[in-house]
Amino acid sequence: MAFGVIVKLMLNQEAAIDQLFHALAVPARRSMVERLSLGPASVTELAKPLAISLPAVVQHLEVLETSGLVRSEKTGRVRICRIEPSALRRTENWIAKRRSNLERCLDRLAKHLGEED
Amino acid sequence: MAFGVIVKLMLNQEAAIDQLFHALAVPARRSMVERLSLGPASVTELAKPLAISLPAVVQHLEVLETSGLVRSEKTGRVRICRIEPSALRRTENWIAKRRSNLERCLDRLAKHLGEED
Repeated sequence: MAFGVIVKLMLNQEAAIDQLFHALAVPARRSMVERLSLGPASVTELAKPLAISLPAVVQHLEVLETSGLVRSEKTGRVRICRIEPSALRRTENWIAKRRSNLERCLDRLAKHLGEED
Repeated sequence: MAFGVIVKLMLNQEAAIDQLFHALAVPARRSMVERLSLGPASVTELAKPLAISLPAVVQHLEVLETSGLVRSEKTGRVRICRIEPSALRRTENWIAKRRSNLERCLDRLAKHLGEED
């Protein structure tokens, strides 16, 4: 693969992670993800527990769909939303990898301090 | 505990999670977290691989410190930054909980479809 193509792929991945974290940085959108983690729901169902207007919910839904965290499809007159498990996993993996790096680093430090005793 | 106090605590927790995801939604800040997951570093070391000015790095550092993800302290003339492992774990746990809800939901669905066969 050409170097330019690899760089472009990496930048795309970075942009995708930006959008995932950006999507999760707002309480209303996290509430929607929370609700959808229990199963698919219509836009009206998503709006019910939130103290915001339906158009605002639709806007949040657009951000969630752009990030890839949520998909929706219209069945008759109802739009049903569901979580995309792979996107949730990608976000979790990003953090888990840094956490495991950090733990290795702290382990090395503890070992080093132990050897000094 | 009074109801008002519990609601305030919950809102504080929500605001803290907002700040954690907001902090991670920008590539430069993720690079800094990535670097710090390998061990403590000075502000100059954090700036080195990034194609942005030192003042910009300091601004990103402030966002990371406000979120609780990073702590820094001045030793002589050098400011040393390190990750706060509990904040990283809190962010990971938030996602992991929703992922596990979702998996339970998908398992139930699979079982339900199996019973229908």
